Amino acid sequence: MNETLRVAVIGAGRMGADHIQRLSRRIHGAEVAAVVDVDLARARAAIEGIPDAVALADAEEALNNGDVNAVLIATPGFLHEDILLRALEQDLPILCEKPLTPDAASAWRIVQAEEKLGRKRIQVGFMRRYDAEYAKLGELVQNKDMGELLMLHCAHRNPDTPPGFTNAMLITDSVVHEFDAIRFLTGEEITSVQVRLGKATKNAPQGQHDPQHVLIETSSGVLADVEIYVNARFGYEVATQASFEDGIVNIGGDSGPYVRRAGRWGGEVTPSFIERFGTAYDVEVQAWVDAAARGGIGGPSAWDGYATAACCEAGVQAQKSGEKVNVRLNPKPDLYS
Amino acid sequence: MNETLRVAVIGAGRMGADHIQRLSRRIHGAEVAAVVDVDLARARAAIEGIPDAVALADAEEALNNGDVNAVLIATPGFLHEDILLRALEQDLPILCEKPLTPDAASAWRIVQAEEKLGRKRIQVGFMRRYDAEYAKLGELVQNKDMGELLMLHCAHRNPDTPPGFTNAMLITDSVVHEFDAIRFLTGEEITSVQVRLGKATKNAPQGQHDPQHVLIETSSGVLADVEIYVNARFGYEVATQASFEDGIVNIGGDSGPYVRRAGRWGGEVTPSFIERFGTAYDVEVQAWVDAAARGGIGGPSAWDGYATAACCEAGVQAQKSGEKVNVRLNPKPDLYS
Amino acid sequence: MNETLRVAVIGAGRMGADHIQRLSRRIHGAEVAAVVDVDLARARAAIEGIPDAVALADAEEALNNGDVNAVLIATPGFLHEDILLRALEQDLPILCEKPLTPDAASAWRIVQAEEKLGRKRIQVGFMRRYDAEYAKLGELVQNKDMGELLMLHCAHRNPDTPPGFTNAMLITDSVVHEFDAIRFLTGEEITSVQVRLGKATKNAPQGQHDPQHVLIETSSGVLADVEIYVNARFGYEVATQASFEDGIVNIGGDSGPYVRRAGRWGGEVTPSFIERFGTAYDVEVQAWVDAAARGGIGGPSAWDGYATAACCEAGVQAQKSGEKVNVRLNPKPDLYS
Amino acid sequence: MNETLRVAVIGAGRMGADHIQRLSRRIHGAEVAAVVDVDLARARAAIEGIPDAVALADAEEALNNGDVNAVLIATPGFLHEDILLRALEQDLPILCEKPLTPDAASAWRIVQAEEKLGRKRIQVGFMRRYDAEYAKLGELVQNKDMGELLMLHCAHRNPDTPPGFTNAMLITDSVVHEFDAIRFLTGEEITSVQVRLGKATKNAPQGQHDPQHVLIETSSGVLADVEIYVNARFGYEVATQASFEDGIVNIGGDSGPYVRRAGRWGGEVTPSFIERFGTAYDVEVQAWVDAAARGGIGGPSAWDGYATAACCEAGVQAQKSGEKVNVRLNPKPDLYS
Repeated sequence: MNETLRVAVIGAGRMGADHIQRLSRRIHGAEVAAVVDVDLARARAAIEGIPDAVALADAEEALNNGDVNAVLIATPGFLHEDILLRALEQDLPILCEKPLTPDAASAWRIVQAEEKLGRKRIQVGFMRRYDAEYAKLGELVQNKDMGELLMLHCAHRNPDTPPGFTNAMLITDSVVHEFDAIRFLTGEEITSVQVRLGKATKNAPQGQHDPQHVLIETSSGVLADVEIYVNARFGYEVATQASFEDGIVNIGGDSGPYVRRAGRWGGEVTPSFIERFGTAYDVEVQAWVDAAARGGIGGPSAWDGYATAACCEAGVQAQKSGEKVNVRLNPKPDLYS
Repeated sequence: MNETLRVAVIGAGRMGADHIQRLSRRIHGAEVAAVVDVDLARARAAIEGIPDAVALADAEEALNNGDVNAVLIATPGFLHEDILLRALEQDLPILCEKPLTPDAASAWRIVQAEEKLGRKRIQVGFMRRYDAEYAKLGELVQNKDMGELLMLHCAHRNPDTPPGFTNAMLITDSVVHEFDAIRFLTGEEITSVQVRLGKATKNAPQGQHDPQHVLIETSSGVLADVEIYVNARFGYEVATQASFEDGIVNIGGDSGPYVRRAGRWGGEVTPSFIERFGTAYDVEVQAWVDAAARGGIGGPSAWDGYATAACCEAGVQAQKSGEKVNVRLNPKPDLYS
Repeated sequence: MNETLRVAVIGAGRMGADHIQRLSRRIHGAEVAAVVDVDLARARAAIEGIPDAVALADAEEALNNGDVNAVLIATPGFLHEDILLRALEQDLPILCEKPLTPDAASAWRIVQAEEKLGRKRIQVGFMRRYDAEYAKLGELVQNKDMGELLMLHCAHRNPDTPPGFTNAMLITDSVVHEFDAIRFLTGEEITSVQVRLGKATKNAPQGQHDPQHVLIETSSGVLADVEIYVNARFGYEVATQASFEDGIVNIGGDSGPYVRRAGRWGGEVTPSFIERFGTAYDVEVQAWVDAAARGGIGGPSAWDGYATAACCEAGVQAQKSGEKVNVRLNPKPDLYS
Repeated sequence: MNETLRVAVIGAGRMGADHIQRLSRRIHGAEVAAVVDVDLARARAAIEGIPDAVALADAEEALNNGDVNAVLIATPGFLHEDILLRALEQDLPILCEKPLTPDAASAWRIVQAEEKLGRKRIQVGFMRRYDAEYAKLGELVQNKDMGELLMLHCAHRNPDTPPGFTNAMLITDSVVHEFDAIRFLTGEEITSVQVRLGKATKNAPQGQHDPQHVLIETSSGVLADVEIYVNARFGYEVATQASFEDGIVNIGGDSGPYVRRAGRWGGEVTPSFIERFGTAYDVEVQAWVDAAARGGIGGPSAWDGYATAACCEAGVQAQKSGEKVNVRLNPKPDLYS
């Protein structure tokens, strides 16, 4: 657990660049060792400010680099197979952005190669499984606390699509997440898919029929449906409503997850500051670590500590007297201005 | 920015232990070098599994340890002053849990010591400034997009209090966060404090009058009030409602932040998956890094990639035919069971 | 407009009894003249306390009663046709609970009879058209303020079903409301219906497959789907989500209607007290009218007026002085105790 | 209970006109007999379309009118005393808009006059007591289901104020409602009032200091505070947050009432269609009664009944077959176009 992961990131586009920042700034125990992009200038830009990282134009070279001991694949899907097979040969840990590969036949070849290797090396980037609301809904399905899950109504909405986004990509690039989420939530394989095409928005680029209504069944008969709507303009939304025997649960809504059950709607109250401010603590400490490494501070100063101490003194006095108590501060030293 | 921070954590109680996990598992660029606690057994327990960390009973020893180049103070407030002064002498970066010190006079001594040193070394742990909702509300105040801020109504509610939590600590331990938040949000110092004691809950331990209503003024005349209620039983809640010239903003509510303005209530739609799933990506990659370091994976496998590829194929076919298309999968290899 | 409607209510079951209360207590300009039920005891119970109303066992008798000039039909649907045809013969205004009749052939006979009469006499009880949220959503569709309506996702959930509720009645008794609502919202006729049966709850009575997923198309290609789930246990819910070219609108949710559009989620703020408290005013005045007719009052008394006047005086004084002003009241006269 | 109330409405301004519509169109058991306004043209306009109603310039004349047997007072508050005393002399039922009178001394004279009369004739127009959310919160206080009520935080916000709205009227015209609501909710008298003036909005007319923060105590020590903010621009809002020993309840929020208690937030699910669509039924039946009196219908027609019957037939067939079933309709008769 102690060896730092030296990761080669393959692909420095939007997702790749995002993962590079993550690995080199927020993730504990990993560093970016190499960035590969056919556009070498883009690879070079991506490693700026990252010590000991190299920019390369060729994935092969990265895999052969002795400094690399892990691979994160963020290229377009049709390029995945070769890199995956090569990285498996070298027995490297692999995080592969979805899709694993664009079709079932090539994906099956990957599965077979990994099976032959005899241990799991590939993790696929279905990040929704790490979203707190999906995780919670998954638990509710598994523990049968609300009875059996019966139906899932999903919506996947994007404001618009990048150039070159084809009609098939509504399924392979967007609904693919719903496929995995439904499998994750139900713990079952999907057995059939149907697509309804109805009235289409005028806001879609030519060639796209948008929105579409996708009907899905799982092995136990759970019915799911997905509204995939990728030119929805208003914003981004990924939401699911689950109908159980004993109630209804929504996740992904703008106003938070909530449950309807036994005559009540609502959710769980945050139990303590740890849950409420956990992320804030992470951000705080990271800000301090980053600033401290540069010789400064990254947040509230000693002056802030002093000023609030003076407020507290006044507050305690006010608590006793019931009167209004003025807060008096010394002049602020220049250091804090 | 490249040297890893080797942190001495002083105090291994609840907050200290939490920070130790954070530094050694989630924060990039920092490691725990030493844990100090008068209860040496507690210090030893806290470093379990952390390589190259030492457990000590004395803060002085930690500060003299050549492996330490930063300090995080998480002891009770009355112990802060000595450690702060010593760490300042050594010119170390310091993250000090709130309060800086328990009273204004000692806090002022710290300010003067740091002023003498001539650079800011102390950051105080007012973590709310790193909470996304507080940050957003602060921006709204500063950019005057909704006109001037006029009033703040705050609620700070805990389910109960730990043993030894005195009546004064309602102010010094809880309202202190509101003091800093009000200062942070307004960018102004607080000028007066008043406390109203009314009907009290029967659920408070002896000696505590709970809840209390704290009335606060800032230098420009913003009126704030805080309901501090530390035996509220139902859960934990920290919420603020801000009245501006042009509308009202709530943060910290269970159903998300929202704004009332110009005849509309609501909030901002998530603009893209980056915002919606940013934390999930962080969690995902950290899970992979941690699992990879142990030779495994920490999430969706190649089988998941294969199964969803098969769904996509069926989906694209269904999109074209309008018919229900069955999804066919090869038997699942043992590796993935 | 001035003649009071003297209504014969046919059927004194749950819906009939509810309408009898409504007509005799809340609706201005109508009275119950007769109540008809094959169970004469039930009819008699229903007219208790209603002056000048008669209880009858036979609808024919009611229609021949000279005191009756309107009919409200609340019997089971299979009994509607005869009564409708007889009431049309007499050219009476008719409010007919849904369904008009249980099948299309008999409904068409009613349409033809009314067409022959040459003026509309029958109003069908699709009450959702009078619900403020449905009305608002209908307006949004018609004024194309959010572009074209593209999809509708509906949920219709009941906690359980009365005895004798058949599998077909999920459609004819429950989804029938959705059929009319979709027609009302789109202003179009429905062109096809499909039903998906998936995993069923164990909580349904024998013979019911519950829930079901109903797929609907309208003449312009709007796709709608309905989750009909009549043993959902948690409570009652009727909700619709509408996808437009420029955004998404939800109605019927527990947390109020809201719109997602142009990067914002939310709804309209209540513009004035008229909208906020309009129903309260109606209830208030009805309470006063009812109490006054019995020689009393139905709400806040002169004492309440006096006590609040004293508060106001103290308030205005406090406004000027900034000090706490005590409110002093005379002893309360016995009349108000 | 059967005699229709023949009401004289005194004052035909905004509130008066609203009550005239209510009495003559929605309230069962009452009619407008007379409308009084010093501006006789306004009184005449107000009775347009109301049969058997007279317009008068003098309240005395209305009280002497043999056709009048009840009085609703909607003039400015300073005119109330004389009319109240005269109406009490005649022993008429009176609904008096708030305030009863503008000051405690005159209000006390009314109380004494009514006490002398020996029975309650005056009801004061604090309509919040009839609002479903206030009623529910009042119940929660009384039944102590959530323990003792400890604090109340109220907000009363208007977008702007009519001409002539003075600084004192923030208290006497707006906070007066909060005074009564606090008395209603607690069942206690108010013992003190204090007002804080802080930063003021630039949007208030000269002479108004807006917003103000009003601090209130009740006899058992419940602390309440009111933000009164009458130039808040964004819209109208009246909301209260109540802190109990066992949880927190909000009413009046845009997203519905909710309770936080025992680790859960939320509210009650609507139990049945009666609660969900009760108001819609009232509106529906009133629409039918009004249209029927004019010889027409006021909603869904027989055609709508026929078309939905055809949908149901297709639906039941689809339920059995699992296939898509087309809905076929006869041509629509001209009568329904």
